[in-house]
Amino acid sequence: MTNKVYFTPGPSELYPSVPEHMQAAMANKIGSISHRSQQFKDIYAHAVSGLRQLLQLPDNYEVLFLSSANEIWERAIQNTVEHESFHLVNGSFSKRFYEISSELGRKATKYEVAFGEGFNVDKIEIPASAELVALVQNETSSGACMPVADINKIRAKAGEEALIFVDVVSSMPNPALDYSKIDSAYFSVQKCFGLPAGLGVWLLNDRCIAKAEALVAKGISVGSYHSVPSLLSKAKANQTPETPNVLNIYLLSQVLDEMNKKSVDAIRQETEAKAKLIYDYIGSSENFDIAVKKPEHRSPTTIIANTKLPASEVNKRLAPFDMAVGSGYGSYKESQIRIANFPAHAVTQVQALVYKLQELIG
Amino acid sequence: MTNKVYFTPGPSELYPSVPEHMQAAMANKIGSISHRSQQFKDIYAHAVSGLRQLLQLPDNYEVLFLSSANEIWERAIQNTVEHESFHLVNGSFSKRFYEISSELGRKATKYEVAFGEGFNVDKIEIPASAELVALVQNETSSGACMPVADINKIRAKAGEEALIFVDVVSSMPNPALDYSKIDSAYFSVQKCFGLPAGLGVWLLNDRCIAKAEALVAKGISVGSYHSVPSLLSKAKANQTPETPNVLNIYLLSQVLDEMNKKSVDAIRQETEAKAKLIYDYIGSSENFDIAVKKPEHRSPTTIIANTKLPASEVNKRLAPFDMAVGSGYGSYKESQIRIANFPAHAVTQVQALVYKLQELIG
Repeated sequence: MTNKVYFTPGPSELYPSVPEHMQAAMANKIGSISHRSQQFKDIYAHAVSGLRQLLQLPDNYEVLFLSSANEIWERAIQNTVEHESFHLVNGSFSKRFYEISSELGRKATKYEVAFGEGFNVDKIEIPASAELVALVQNETSSGACMPVADINKIRAKAGEEALIFVDVVSSMPNPALDYSKIDSAYFSVQKCFGLPAGLGVWLLNDRCIAKAEALVAKGISVGSYHSVPSLLSKAKANQTPETPNVLNIYLLSQVLDEMNKKSVDAIRQETEAKAKLIYDYIGSSENFDIAVKKPEHRSPTTIIANTKLPASEVNKRLAPFDMAVGSGYGSYKESQIRIANFPAHAVTQVQALVYKLQELIG
Repeated sequence: MTNKVYFTPGPSELYPSVPEHMQAAMANKIGSISHRSQQFKDIYAHAVSGLRQLLQLPDNYEVLFLSSANEIWERAIQNTVEHESFHLVNGSFSKRFYEISSELGRKATKYEVAFGEGFNVDKIEIPASAELVALVQNETSSGACMPVADINKIRAKAGEEALIFVDVVSSMPNPALDYSKIDSAYFSVQKCFGLPAGLGVWLLNDRCIAKAEALVAKGISVGSYHSVPSLLSKAKANQTPETPNVLNIYLLSQVLDEMNKKSVDAIRQETEAKAKLIYDYIGSSENFDIAVKKPEHRSPTTIIANTKLPASEVNKRLAPFDMAVGSGYGSYKESQIRIANFPAHAVTQVQALVYKLQELIG
């Protein structure tokens, strides 16, 4: 039994009601039902309609369930890129998407800025030949984010046929995306949805689907059981091609009910208010400083601080008080900390973390 | 709250201790821990060593965690087949593996017998050019199984370099495989391991790994985050490339402890004894008859009966008594029933099912 509060950037603190929903799932044997049963189809439909409501998704977008954001990267390339993709890179995850395209035999090009920096969109030139343009609204490794206003400028810079993909893995539902200015967005549930890991959610519009169908018509392999046409034909019947992570789809449907009851606006306001608490503290700390220099590029959901004390020492001091923050990513493991500010983190918990860090570390 | 006992062929009845382990997982916040933490690595190592013990896996085999058996089909083709695979087909799942190879642009050939039939191995000719030979030890759709003695004859009939893959999705740990006569076996945890769906387990030997490396060396794409080299490099550090279904890996480690305590021999004996109860009843029923004609091809774990009453009517009669069997697969939906006989099903539960079917249906 632990009372630890996880401010790690995913897996992270579970949404407070998850243990209760899990107990209900066990009592109702959700883990035993067939993935072809009406009971499952109702759960699936419930999760999708909850997402549509929370994310204010237009009708020309479909919702697909995959296993992880990693998988979505792969399926995106397989299904929408014949020759070339273009990637904005400013951290480890945006770089990984770029690499995956290359590993799948495509020509991948990039526009890269230093780890922790955001982008000056006016400087970006996008090759007209890029079929997919990969943006990272929120780079989980570095805490740099891309304002929606900047995302909205990309369409005019890309080729007419280019599909614009937005990584919102660790920010959704916080950014109020303009879906008409992009073609796809994706996230995993262990970040801002406060669920156990093992489920990725892919939002994609009719243009993405048409591209996948065009590749199929050209005789190009777009994968097998998780190709877009295969996923879509099952999604229309509220199912997945394989036996999916049924429990997580159930938990998602339940947590979405609560998030929608609270409203996405209230969640966003609370997220911004908690982010201000954390950034104000880090900005005034003797030990920490804010890693992302430009205020407009600072993520409200994954907040990164440079730390004089090693990150492991910060966590060692927090441990007796049942709190944990994330260490830095990769080579920043000890020189940065990452603080997740997700909907599952209550204002009081964030306040408690800030007070404790102030007291213990200054 | 339901007391229904699921004899469906997967998802199926959960192993009796799963709700308790899930409660412990929630109390210990397993859903919040990092997939790069020592705590996770210990869970991963525990699950792998539990599998090695239960399945008596030789040292030249590796254990990899994927999302589903569907995914394993795809990764197997991507990582071990440059040109051609060969498939024994006698039902919907063996056929699906064959189709996946083709969807991934390989030449897929097959030796097919009717749905519900087993194979006469002496009649099978395997093209010398087949790089992967796909066997189905237990065809979940039709209930036909392949005796291990027959599996062991395949190596001599295949090309020297051919890799022999065995589908044990809904039978493992029941078949006592001779790992020296095959190269890979795979299953998903929602069948005989009594867990929620969302995790596939891939066992593969050094020959499979060498083949994947040879394809990489030739410049052939073997996928990205879930390529064999990528999976393997993380597996050696008790991790996965992506954030995996952490909860399920934890539950697997716990259930394996209990299965190993009981011993694989005891599980196999109990499985055979329960299968005899079910087959004896079906064989003597006025309504049912055994779908698989040859006794040596009858699966002990997924038992299929032709039914005069529609399958939905059988389940309608069972429902007030909190029992459910599986309907037939695909076009056999109403004309067959499928009864799962997994380690999670207690002898007393199987007896109760047989008595009740006898009473209600005859």
